[in-house]
Amino acid sequence: MTKYLVISADCHAGLPNAEYREWLDPEYREQFDAALAERARMAELASQGFLNQEFADEWHAENEEGLRGGWDAGRRDKELDADGVAGEVIFPDADAVSSGASAPFGAGLGATGDIPPELLMAGARAHNRWLAELCGASPERRAGVAIVPILADIDAAVAEIRRARDSGLRGGILIPPMWQPYEPYHHPRYDPVWAVCQELSMPVHVHSGVADKASYGPHIGIYAAEVRFWSARPLWFLIWSGVFERFPRLQFGVAECGAFWVNDLLWRMDLVYERDHGSRKLGEQLTANLTMRPSEYFDRNCFIGASNTQRRELARRYEIGVANLCWGNDFPHPEGTWPHTREFLRDAFCDIPGDETAAMLGLNAAEVYGFDTDALAALAARIGPCPEDLGQSGDPTAKWAALKQAGRPWLTGIETLPPALA
Amino acid sequence: MTKYLVISADCHAGLPNAEYREWLDPEYREQFDAALAERARMAELASQGFLNQEFADEWHAENEEGLRGGWDAGRRDKELDADGVAGEVIFPDADAVSSGASAPFGAGLGATGDIPPELLMAGARAHNRWLAELCGASPERRAGVAIVPILADIDAAVAEIRRARDSGLRGGILIPPMWQPYEPYHHPRYDPVWAVCQELSMPVHVHSGVADKASYGPHIGIYAAEVRFWSARPLWFLIWSGVFERFPRLQFGVAECGAFWVNDLLWRMDLVYERDHGSRKLGEQLTANLTMRPSEYFDRNCFIGASNTQRRELARRYEIGVANLCWGNDFPHPEGTWPHTREFLRDAFCDIPGDETAAMLGLNAAEVYGFDTDALAALAARIGPCPEDLGQSGDPTAKWAALKQAGRPWLTGIETLPPALA
Repeated sequence: MTKYLVISADCHAGLPNAEYREWLDPEYREQFDAALAERARMAELASQGFLNQEFADEWHAENEEGLRGGWDAGRRDKELDADGVAGEVIFPDADAVSSGASAPFGAGLGATGDIPPELLMAGARAHNRWLAELCGASPERRAGVAIVPILADIDAAVAEIRRARDSGLRGGILIPPMWQPYEPYHHPRYDPVWAVCQELSMPVHVHSGVADKASYGPHIGIYAAEVRFWSARPLWFLIWSGVFERFPRLQFGVAECGAFWVNDLLWRMDLVYERDHGSRKLGEQLTANLTMRPSEYFDRNCFIGASNTQRRELARRYEIGVANLCWGNDFPHPEGTWPHTREFLRDAFCDIPGDETAAMLGLNAAEVYGFDTDALAALAARIGPCPEDLGQSGDPTAKWAALKQAGRPWLTGIETLPPALA
Repeated sequence: MTKYLVISADCHAGLPNAEYREWLDPEYREQFDAALAERARMAELASQGFLNQEFADEWHAENEEGLRGGWDAGRRDKELDADGVAGEVIFPDADAVSSGASAPFGAGLGATGDIPPELLMAGARAHNRWLAELCGASPERRAGVAIVPILADIDAAVAEIRRARDSGLRGGILIPPMWQPYEPYHHPRYDPVWAVCQELSMPVHVHSGVADKASYGPHIGIYAAEVRFWSARPLWFLIWSGVFERFPRLQFGVAECGAFWVNDLLWRMDLVYERDHGSRKLGEQLTANLTMRPSEYFDRNCFIGASNTQRRELARRYEIGVANLCWGNDFPHPEGTWPHTREFLRDAFCDIPGDETAAMLGLNAAEVYGFDTDALAALAARIGPCPEDLGQSGDPTAKWAALKQAGRPWLTGIETLPPALA
């Protein structure tokens, strides 16, 4: 019975906040203690009306043991095994409910250009050192993503990327999605970062979390409505400014922003590139830095860490590109599929062809991050879900044939709409 | 033979720049002359590589006569007649190629909070006075949209809204989509604006154009990739902050931003409102200002001036809401369908059921803007396209039945994916 090799392209790990102290360079420990106290006060405030305390209590009570997998390697393996996940890509900040296991000084998912650069880098280095140790115990299973604040000091960023790679972190780097108040990511000043990441085969990531929070007042619905824009935004900055022309082997991933918006983005960008009816007036500057259409750079240089993939998104996979989609369980965040990954996978993938399931659940990530699939084969054979576990039976190929043939309709000219081609 | 009553929910009118002088309050004429000279210099600069000069020359040469319809009522009627358009909603800025017919001081589509408020209001008033005269000659045909800068001085804005309505402008108001550096649109300080617009049945509009231009460098592709976000953004600020709860009869329209993104926005907002799996941790603040789900406010209070509707968008009309979509020819902008509207309509609507075509091409706009359909009937019978002109034959209802029945799948639970339910 064949099992799927499942690699989660979106997991999280982080020490309980206070335990980061010993991983920090000593000169930052006094500021760390002060920041820790301040953070506790802020968390108290922030929870008032913004957090569902009842849910939070239940989540922590029900998953007390499993949540320790956020930092404990042994426990982590048990949880991943139970979820059927053989390999994982590890982002920072293990506690998405109470911010109790976050990289120091806000260096993790919430990093912005407003935080003092020296503290950001100190927090990043502390986390990266610890993460290398966590990954070191089972390197075939874990691709750790180094936090690298690249905004303020490019040389320091490049040095940290080399150091992180040398320490065994091969999952690439996480950069702040929002560059303000520094130069936007189309600026050539960031080229040394892209260059070293290309050289070392370190994928560059943005991950959801930051947004224009100062503009929302108490209205968290606004945050939810637009957070993906702020986190994914560097994608089209890099494409249009020719970064992937200058660094043709650079890999860029957008993590936990969903995938539902990607096909329309590619559609619009390709049409603009071709100067469709609505773009005829645009001058030569539009394509001055490109030699291919935007979707071609996307296919070659970009991927989506789509996390808990929705059926609505999977239905768009031929436009997005099956090879560009990496599933993730978001362990140990409550937005993810852990500890019920098998059920979520069954709901989403029950009628997806086997080869595409295998690609999106693991093989795409294996290629991006260089997982050794042979080394993971025995583990996958033991814990991985088989097609029957996902409710897959019969051959669903015919069901999707029209959409697959159409691919990207704006390029193939094959119209798939209206969907029921009766 | 039945003809469609076509109302363009997105047209533009504006005087040749210099001719606005006489419509300005005298105390602003000196600054106007200086700004006019400055604008000419900027246009020269901006065209270098950003504008396709060959296209611009061709566009102006081929349409020299018709483009005068941007400000000349008689010529305008000829062009609209030839396009089959009986009624129109009129936004500012007639020249989208060379900015040669724009409201003074940048008060039109490009208005931002960075322009001195007094100049913005002076420019707005000048345009509004002229526009009232343009509309006055055939009021049944033209709904003029008043420019109203609402950011700096709420009282002045309210006064201008009343003055504009009294002068005959019944198309509502255009507000700057970007509020920076003032308070975001969730703020209660704008309530007097929403209140007077509700009282006078003046729809509030944002229209595409502004964006975070300071962040793009020379990369106009970035602008094209995200301009809709910046222009449409107030939509979800108003929904989540409860503006439509406080002003249940307020109408809010998003013009020329397309419609393709609307169904996913509603999908995501409804799921968050219902605290789906990914939103369980959000506290009571999320829904503190709402009594209905976001898509219900959208249906009751919002509409999309979708302009040159794409087939990809029309295929999503049951999720967006057929009653929420208003087509427009964008006359006299080159992005629009003029002077070839019949051909564009045939391509887009050839297999759309007649009642839905009638709604999106005109009846929806008639309702939002209070057009007198009886008064327009004779004109529509003379110039309007008939179903045969749009390539409509037979009954396409069956083709769309499954999608129509599904409606918004996240609410009905009817899955329409994969599209070919074979």
